[in-house]
Parts: sequence; structure tokens; C-alpha cells
Amino acid sequence: MTAGSAALDPDDGEAATPRSPLPASRGRDAEDFPPTSWTVARAAGVSQSTVSRALRGDPRVREATRRRVDQAARRLGYVPNSLASGLVSRSTGTVAVIVSDLTNPFFPSLLTPVHDELQLLGYRVVLLTERTDLPTGQETLRRLLDRSVDGVLVTTATLGSRFAGELQRRGVPMVLLNRYIDGLDVDRVVSDNHGGALSGTRHLLELGHRRIAVVRGPANTSTSRDRLAGLQEALAAAGLVLDPALVREGTYSHQSGYQHARELLRLPTPPTALVCGNDVVAFGALDAALSLGVRVPQDVSILGFDDIPMAAWEVFSLTTLRQPTGDMARAAVRMLAERIEHAGELGPGREQVFATSLVRRATVDRPPDPH
Amino acid sequence: MTAGSAALDPDDGEAATPRSPLPASRGRDAEDFPPTSWTVARAAGVSQSTVSRALRGDPRVREATRRRVDQAARRLGYVPNSLASGLVSRSTGTVAVIVSDLTNPFFPSLLTPVHDELQLLGYRVVLLTERTDLPTGQETLRRLLDRSVDGVLVTTATLGSRFAGELQRRGVPMVLLNRYIDGLDVDRVVSDNHGGALSGTRHLLELGHRRIAVVRGPANTSTSRDRLAGLQEALAAAGLVLDPALVREGTYSHQSGYQHARELLRLPTPPTALVCGNDVVAFGALDAALSLGVRVPQDVSILGFDDIPMAAWEVFSLTTLRQPTGDMARAAVRMLAERIEHAGELGPGREQVFATSLVRRATVDRPPDPH
Repeated sequence: MTAGSAALDPDDGEAATPRSPLPASRGRDAEDFPPTSWTVARAAGVSQSTVSRALRGDPRVREATRRRVDQAARRLGYVPNSLASGLVSRSTGTVAVIVSDLTNPFFPSLLTPVHDELQLLGYRVVLLTERTDLPTGQETLRRLLDRSVDGVLVTTATLGSRFAGELQRRGVPMVLLNRYIDGLDVDRVVSDNHGGALSGTRHLLELGHRRIAVVRGPANTSTSRDRLAGLQEALAAAGLVLDPALVREGTYSHQSGYQHARELLRLPTPPTALVCGNDVVAFGALDAALSLGVRVPQDVSILGFDDIPMAAWEVFSLTTLRQPTGDMARAAVRMLAERIEHAGELGPGREQVFATSLVRRATVDRPPDPH
Repeated sequence: MTAGSAALDPDDGEAATPRSPLPASRGRDAEDFPPTSWTVARAAGVSQSTVSRALRGDPRVREATRRRVDQAARRLGYVPNSLASGLVSRSTGTVAVIVSDLTNPFFPSLLTPVHDELQLLGYRVVLLTERTDLPTGQETLRRLLDRSVDGVLVTTATLGSRFAGELQRRGVPMVLLNRYIDGLDVDRVVSDNHGGALSGTRHLLELGHRRIAVVRGPANTSTSRDRLAGLQEALAAAGLVLDPALVREGTYSHQSGYQHARELLRLPTPPTALVCGNDVVAFGALDAALSLGVRVPQDVSILGFDDIPMAAWEVFSLTTLRQPTGDMARAAVRMLAERIEHAGELGPGREQVFATSLVRRATVDRPPDPH
């Protein structure tokens, strides 16, 4: 059981696989050495790359083959080493996911289906966080460029982001999820932010609202820009123009929603409706109304965007535009997997757009009667 | 510029480093080949392991050295490859973090400082999620055992968890954060869950509460068990015994808090106070009270545990026991880094316990006058 016990020792076994890539060394009796993916491949009667695919759960390997490889690996005491297998197959089995801020409740609800889908496809997830308000760190770029990942899923790109372009020039497979970047022709999965804001604003107009305020997210994100454009289109169709005094720009945070909504609600002639950048901003606006004794929806209507799980909590009962987050996440992962496997065969940036839908709960109603 | 352009091509350059680990091959003119960490080491006049440390931002490398290595790497067009450097230095620069469920607002507030601290120390983060209600998957264990990580931070261990023991037997450096496992002598960072629940319950008793109910988290977690024990100790000191009809066991979720609180609040003689397993459970209990028209705190007091950022939102204003999550996360990361660097020199499982504190907001007050 030399082979088996070697696999249990963290201080050896690793170098064996990359040291025998040459046909000459393959003639030696592998049982004298710690087991390698080649040993397993020979025992199972498959290729070395099939071994690494089978052992990382790649769904393209047939069940019978996977079972044969599993049995051979177990019999030989082989523990797959992603370091070594990466050098042989040029595949690390790892995908980097970039998120801006984990404390934003939107990201966990995006990240969980992303993680589950990647795991299903046999990839493991390297998590990189970055704040949208900071320039992209050299450090992050360097980590991605060291080729220890097969692809990158970017969820936080700002409109002017340069590092995604840098990754593209270097040929790193990449998909943008939830946002896009001007002038960068890469795969992306987004929801119809423009259409969502358009239909949400139409709903407010139909209820009789005319004095509509906006608490936006960061202006340098495609989500924020497209939602504003949709809102303006709906207003224009009704012969209205957005009052610049009623437009506030902030971050996608509770604090931003709270502060801006407090200011808007204390104007001499306050708005009758607040269109919020996302649900978390809307929660901040609800808190602001509560702190000022302003009733929702009797005195002011509040509209969110996203429909994260918390929006349905009794205490919020938020009327909002639903993005099919789970479907979007799964689509982005599948797109990335295709890009990794068939980089050369695919065309330039593909786009998948998911429709949004209005979820009517308790925070939007008719405007108060004019005094 | 052969060397420089090679580094930009994703299809070559990788094999060069592991193919020249033998002194014999080092005599060749490295400039004929894609640059390797050895080429950079020679140019910068440092060791190969210093190169990989410097390039992954390890704070133990002096600033002047790092600059020299950076300049040499840039001049030679060398892009560090963690795959190859892992084989040379036996260090992957990667730590796995296991969380049970990202959608629980507690984990992001733990994960963010964990991630930031690991990044500061030059590690990147592999994220593995697992649900506490599922048996540990073979797949997860296999990924950890493939030695592509330097250490593991476990945040979700249940009391009977076997895989942490398996990792320990295999010598994988590991720290448990926020929970511990019976009979497993490994490094751990926890808060004083027992003391927190004790002081919270004492506070309720001092206000006059006698009919106190509990909505617990999963019974197979150390947090849930220790909090229950603290509560029982406070009751016993006041000559009271916990009424089994007022103890509900659930998960650490909004839904669990909502369902159990609804049942408890509809009892013929409802409790005057609900001690909740954590803040998210307390939010569910607040929603349940709202849905039944039960006023908080006039009709019932609700106490949380954690003090996640949302607890301070106006709409909740939750009275709760504060855990110093950021401090705990940073302590756990530093403990793990020590364990990785000095595995042999450290004693058995070390423990760091952080005190909790009662944060008084608006959901706890005197019990209603008896009718």
C-alpha cells in the first residue's frame, strides 16, 4: 500500500504527475511510485484527460466511464491534484466570480445559484470582491492573469471598467452578469432594465402620480443608466419631464436610500412616488418614511427593483420589478462554460436578456388627494 | 520580445516552470524559453520562493525586495502561474472558506471581513457552500483533499460533523469560525454564546418577564446548544424552569422564525417574550407579530442574537446580543495563517472566545400587565 499511503501524505505525490508528461517515462512500472492520473487512466482504460474530467464531475463524461475511473482511483489510492491536472489538461477546474460587495443582499441571491450551477458543472469557485467605488486593484488583475482560473464571471463591472477589456485582450473566457460595459463586445446576461423601469413608471402614472422622484444607484453602472432611461421614456410618453430636483444619485445601499429619501420627503412639495434604484435602496426609503412619520403608501408610494427574497417579508411588502435572478445566474454560468470549452468556435459577444415583471405588493397605491 | 508575447498567449508558457525543477536544467540559457519564476529569481537576485511570495503580495516580503521582483518580472514579461508555483513551493496561496448558506444575512457579514483579511495576507479565497441540513458531500471533501488549498476555514460545522475530523487526520490546516465540534481538538474562534444568552435572558427577567419562549436554531450546532444552556441557567437562577411547550427548534432562517413565532403567539396563553436563535429568526418573529396584529414590544418582546447591520434598520430596531463579527473573522484568519506557516510548532487546538454585549433598541420592554 505504498501508493495508497503516499496519497495521504501532504508532502509528496504532487510532483509525480507533471514530471512524467513524456512518453518515455510512461514505460516504467507506475506502481513503484505514488499513483498519478496516468496510472488511473491506464487502469481504467481511458485517456488522462478523461480521468481528470471524470474526477471533477464533468457532466460530459458518461456515467459508466465515471464509475470505472472512480473505482480505479479508489483502488490505487489516488487523490486527484488539481495543481498537477491543471498542468496536463490546461484546465484548472476553477472559475473566478467577481462581486462588488457581499453585504448587499442582492449579491448572495445571485451568487448562490451561480455557485450551485458551477458546482454542478464540476467547477469550483474563487471569490473576488471589489467595491464599485474603488478603482480596480492591480492585485485582482494579476491574480486573474496568473491563469489559475479557466474563466471569469464578472457581476460588478462599471461602464468604464478597464480590467474586463484587459482580460478579453488576454483571451480569458469571460461573461458579464447583470451589467454590461460600453464598447466591450463580450458575452453578457442582463435583465431588461429599461423595459422594467418603463413598465413600473407607467404603473405609477396610471395610478395618477405626476410628481415622481428617483433615488438612483451609481451613475457609472449600466443598470442604473438603463433604469433611468426607461423611467424617462415613460414620463415623456405621458408628456412629462423629470424634475432635476427630484433625481438623486447614490449607491445601491440602504444608507443611500435612507438619506436621499429623507431629503426628498422633507421638500416643501414632496414627491408622491419614489422610484428606487433597487430593493435595498427602497428599504432605506421605507425606513426614512418611517422615521419621518410619512405613511406608505398613503402619503408616498415606493417602488423597488430586483425582488430579492426580503422584499416579500411582511414588514416590507415591497412593490418591485422582479428580475429572474436564478435563471440569469444559471444562463451566465452555462454561457461561460461554453466559452471555456469552445473558445475558438463561438462568435463575438453574445447577449441574453431576461424580461422583468411587476410584483404588486403594499408600497404602491394612488397618490394622496391634493390639498 | 519572445518571452513577453509568450506570457500573453494562454496556450503556452505554463509547462515551462515545472519542467525545470532540476538543477541540471537551470544551466541552460533561460532567455530562449518562456520566462519562469527561476528566470525572475535570477534577474532579481532572490530565491524562487521569494519571487512567488513577492508576486502574490505576501506581507513578509520587504517592500524593496517586492519592487525588485516586480520590475524583473515586468521586464521579462513573466506572468506568475499559481499552478506552477504551487508545485515548486508546495503553497497554493489559496484558502477554502466553507459557508452553509450565503442567503443568510449573517454569512456575508462574516465573509466580507474574512475575505478582506485573507486578501491582505496574500491568500485568495475558494468559496464552498453547504447547507447545514444536508450531509457533507463527498464532492466537497474530495476537492479539499486534492491539496489545491493551503488551509480551510470552516464556518458551518455541525456538532457531529465528520469531515472536519477527516481533514484534521490528513493534516490540512483548519480553523473553525463561529462554531465548534464536540471531541475535535482544532483551532477555533467563537463568541461567548452561553454568556450572551445568559445576560439577555437576565435582562428579560429583570423587566418582569416570566413566560419566556425560545425559537432555536438547529439543535446540532454549538451556537444553538450554548445559547439554550445560557438561557436555562438564567431561568434556573431565578427559580424558573423552561416550559417545554415554549421551546421550538428550527433553522437559522426568516421562515423558521415566522412559522414558530406565529404558533407561539397564537397559544391560549402566549409568551410575553421570544428569545430568537439569531437576528434573522427574530425578523421572522417580528413579521409574525405584524401579521397577527400583535404589538412589539407592548404585547410581546423579541430578542435577537448577532447584531447584523440590518438589526439597526429603523423598521426592525431589534434588541439583540452583539457578536463582534469582524474581530472574530480577522482573528480566525490570522490563526489559520499561523497554522499554515508553523503547523508543526503550534500546540493542539487553540481557542479564542469573544465577549458579546446587549444592544438595547426597541423590541424589548416590560411584559404587558396581566389581565
